[in-house]
Amino acid sequence: MINEEKFSSALLERAVSEFSQLPGIGRKTALRLVLHLLKQEDNRVFSFTESLNQLKQKICYCKECNTISDTEICSICENENRTGDILCVVENVRDVLSIENTQQYKGKYHVLGGIISPMEGIGPSDIAIDLLLDRVERDNVSEVILALSTTMEGDTTNFYIFKKLKSYNVRVTTLARGVALGDELEYADELTLGRSIKYRTLYEETLIT
Amino acid sequence: MINEEKFSSALLERAVSEFSQLPGIGRKTALRLVLHLLKQEDNRVFSFTESLNQLKQKICYCKECNTISDTEICSICENENRTGDILCVVENVRDVLSIENTQQYKGKYHVLGGIISPMEGIGPSDIAIDLLLDRVERDNVSEVILALSTTMEGDTTNFYIFKKLKSYNVRVTTLARGVALGDELEYADELTLGRSIKYRTLYEETLIT
Repeated sequence: MINEEKFSSALLERAVSEFSQLPGIGRKTALRLVLHLLKQEDNRVFSFTESLNQLKQKICYCKECNTISDTEICSICENENRTGDILCVVENVRDVLSIENTQQYKGKYHVLGGIISPMEGIGPSDIAIDLLLDRVERDNVSEVILALSTTMEGDTTNFYIFKKLKSYNVRVTTLARGVALGDELEYADELTLGRSIKYRTLYEETLIT
Repeated sequence: MINEEKFSSALLERAVSEFSQLPGIGRKTALRLVLHLLKQEDNRVFSFTESLNQLKQKICYCKECNTISDTEICSICENENRTGDILCVVENVRDVLSIENTQQYKGKYHVLGGIISPMEGIGPSDIAIDLLLDRVERDNVSEVILALSTTMEGDTTNFYIFKKLKSYNVRVTTLARGVALGDELEYADELTLGRSIKYRTLYEETLIT
């Protein structure tokens, strides 16, 4: 075990402590990664650091949907084949990627950039809710899909947005929750199974994939 | 699951692919780390990348023992309280740290910077063996402890060094191998248990800790 003592090299110590501030990276992993980088050619390391600097300096957020983008308007918002009157509200860009990978959604997104969390001091004004309301009004959006996680914070944010949208003429839906495909019923938790029964779907519809 | 498709942002794509080249970091973890960095203040990110650039540009290897060091001679080699006539031969700086943490060793180290591995194209001339032989001769070293791992490559390297040291008047030892403290005998593998019995130690000696 490598304990929390500092290394004799200050340069190594600094690199390791910077690395170990990343989420899920402890000092031991940080040391392994730093030593790996040390073994690489100079230009490999500079390319690594340059890519992060460039990202941080040049990245912008799509003016429409607030996702991470190289351009003022992201490629999804610019895509004319996607219907602009359905918006899927997600927490972050990872959720956009997850839903895109299903290839089941042809509408547009709205990335909040966080969820309401009093514990972390994040209120409604800290996330892109106003931008969403502006967009719903301006683009004549017909449906908003709330796709936030079912945590306390996610539910709070869903409900806050739902209430805000009441004054607009828009259908508000949320992701179907239920027993996952392939799961055994006996291992499903009661709440999920309960929702699966309550919001059962027509068998016919499940045949169309 | 995020599949291997590229992201719509080229900047994000480049940063994620650079990160995912680190050992043990897949694309999904890389994305999580990059998004974490994106959320930080600018100067936090620049401090992270700067620390790696500095390390790569300024780090040097101790002229005596070949370990990573900020100075020409590392702090262990410079320490006059450590006896210079015992050298512990290890593969890399992580092994130095591990042995240092035991606080049981007061000699000096010699870091090979790798082990002989024909599979990876690493021969005896690629690692710091000549430097070790020079040092043994010049410093009148009385004992060399071979502390490489007991893999095929480690054993090969141990044996190569052992043969090279035959022409010098030096005692060559290796780490004691045996059942770990706290391990149950019935779960120990036969080779290890066999060595534990063959190289049994005086009970008296184990009382002095």
